[in-house]
Amino acid sequence: MRTIEWKNGAVKTVDQTRLPTRTVYLEMTSCDEVAHAIKTLQVRGAPLLGAAAAYGLALTAYHSKAKSRKQLVEELETSAKVLRETRPTAVNLFWAIERVMKKALEKEDVADAVRAVVEEAEKIAEEDVEVNRRIGKHGATLIEDGDTVLTHCNAGSLATVDYGTALAVLRTAWEDGKKIKVIATETRPLLQGARLTAYELHRDGIPVTLITDSMVGYVLARGFVQKVIVGADRIVRDAVVNKIGTYSVAVLAHEHKAPFYVAAPKSTFDVKRLAKDVVIEERSMSEVVKFGDVQIAPAGVPALNPAFDITPMKYVAGIICEEGVLSPAAFQKLSAS
Amino acid sequence: MRTIEWKNGAVKTVDQTRLPTRTVYLEMTSCDEVAHAIKTLQVRGAPLLGAAAAYGLALTAYHSKAKSRKQLVEELETSAKVLRETRPTAVNLFWAIERVMKKALEKEDVADAVRAVVEEAEKIAEEDVEVNRRIGKHGATLIEDGDTVLTHCNAGSLATVDYGTALAVLRTAWEDGKKIKVIATETRPLLQGARLTAYELHRDGIPVTLITDSMVGYVLARGFVQKVIVGADRIVRDAVVNKIGTYSVAVLAHEHKAPFYVAAPKSTFDVKRLAKDVVIEERSMSEVVKFGDVQIAPAGVPALNPAFDITPMKYVAGIICEEGVLSPAAFQKLSAS
Repeated sequence: MRTIEWKNGAVKTVDQTRLPTRTVYLEMTSCDEVAHAIKTLQVRGAPLLGAAAAYGLALTAYHSKAKSRKQLVEELETSAKVLRETRPTAVNLFWAIERVMKKALEKEDVADAVRAVVEEAEKIAEEDVEVNRRIGKHGATLIEDGDTVLTHCNAGSLATVDYGTALAVLRTAWEDGKKIKVIATETRPLLQGARLTAYELHRDGIPVTLITDSMVGYVLARGFVQKVIVGADRIVRDAVVNKIGTYSVAVLAHEHKAPFYVAAPKSTFDVKRLAKDVVIEERSMSEVVKFGDVQIAPAGVPALNPAFDITPMKYVAGIICEEGVLSPAAFQKLSAS
Repeated sequence: MRTIEWKNGAVKTVDQTRLPTRTVYLEMTSCDEVAHAIKTLQVRGAPLLGAAAAYGLALTAYHSKAKSRKQLVEELETSAKVLRETRPTAVNLFWAIERVMKKALEKEDVADAVRAVVEEAEKIAEEDVEVNRRIGKHGATLIEDGDTVLTHCNAGSLATVDYGTALAVLRTAWEDGKKIKVIATETRPLLQGARLTAYELHRDGIPVTLITDSMVGYVLARGFVQKVIVGADRIVRDAVVNKIGTYSVAVLAHEHKAPFYVAAPKSTFDVKRLAKDVVIEERSMSEVVKFGDVQIAPAGVPALNPAFDITPMKYVAGIICEEGVLSPAAFQKLSAS
């Protein structure tokens, strides 16, 4: 199934904090529930956050008792505010809210506006799948038969509505008959690589081997890896913002001349901004000093927990989006247009 | 107390797999028990492995009923074989066995030989503490007031008989009144950084902050780190062999022009060998796909688990040993002498 689905005023998604040991579905009927699921990472992945935010607004519209379009828009603004405060880094969330709000404002009649909001949310989700297919197709041209590709975190179908971004590239290469292998980093602290990427690839029959984040240098030095592909939470003019650890992977790939690719839809692009303008979400220390419920560090020892880091464009070999593979220079030209 | 102690034919040590949540002591009276403790990492850390192996042989000698020196040496050879098969990478273990065996062979009388073996084991442990103090003193000259130093894994008192190697440097700097801070990587898969390094430093009142291994690039890029110091399991002519993840840290430090130092006693030096000659211990996949007892990856997904990696000398700013701080070139000259 799709990672997120709309049905008669309810949004259904899989709780990503429970995978891979349990498959638990969430049925949400209010935007507050969606915001909560985003905050707790039950729903995560930049493109999926876009679709989820849009569906959150659709829930507000669908269940609204507003008598006027003005009143509806006020309710939507309240919901949008709650959504914007969930997670600051992935730009897709803000992009989707803007798209949906614009549609609501285009209509005069309240019923028309409700319909437009729900339709726009559906459209964002539909487009995401289509866009991911195109990312997969463009990216697969970079992958050779026999390649071993390293990926960090989860940029798979679980990070999107379906098919994935980085993993779409690997899926397409595999479907094209290329005998690839994947090395997945476990991605501490929340183990999206071990729990989600390994799960998706293993389920699809694509050979995947798990490593700890500390083994990236080792596998590159041993010549085990030909290419690296990751997703992105935001691509600004001078850098890629993605899951903590991405920057380390990029530097190590660069040192070993393994091309480092970023796969992301254009909704992740934020070409007017620079790395210095991006707010990096700092999450609770408990994610680092505990492992699940088990305390691993002595009580009282503090930890850092930035959710993302910043990879300057000099480490990036190409950005794979729905329009093709862009060099960093070509990407930067978009900001001038 | 010391990490390992001899008392009337018994060896006492703390079970390092239970820290920091529980402090459990092991009392061992046979070399087989020592070998088991080494294999299961209840006892770990290159210099400590040297002392533990020596004490293992001392237990065999002390409890032996051998009627001749020849018979004693045969028993010691059997014990040495068991010890040599525990862990292949740390050279201190082999060095200590050689030292002790040589002493046994120097004596004619069996009682003299027993005494010589026990004394040599005690001497190895005593010397380790003294050597670590000197490493601390030499290394502290490199540390400036206000520095934040990153360390990986545990090269502390728990990795040695007392005081540590990399952490000896930090302890001495702190005792000298330098206001330093330490960033400790958690060191997956077995979390020696979170469990042991954070524990030791926190106990001593030295400010320590925990990060995941994936955050090393981030903290360097943000300018949070001035220097890196790690221990070593073996230093060969062209490289440093140390805990998995060390190589990634070294490359990232190099990229950010943060000097990368290695602190280790000369018993860790293996100057006649090259990196290509070193056997890297591959441990059970279960340490990676599980976290403690909890399965984190889907069943059936394989993992890599090399316990060590190899850092070429070009990334090393200096080797801190009991005789001073050696440049890689000075270290390499030792191999010619």
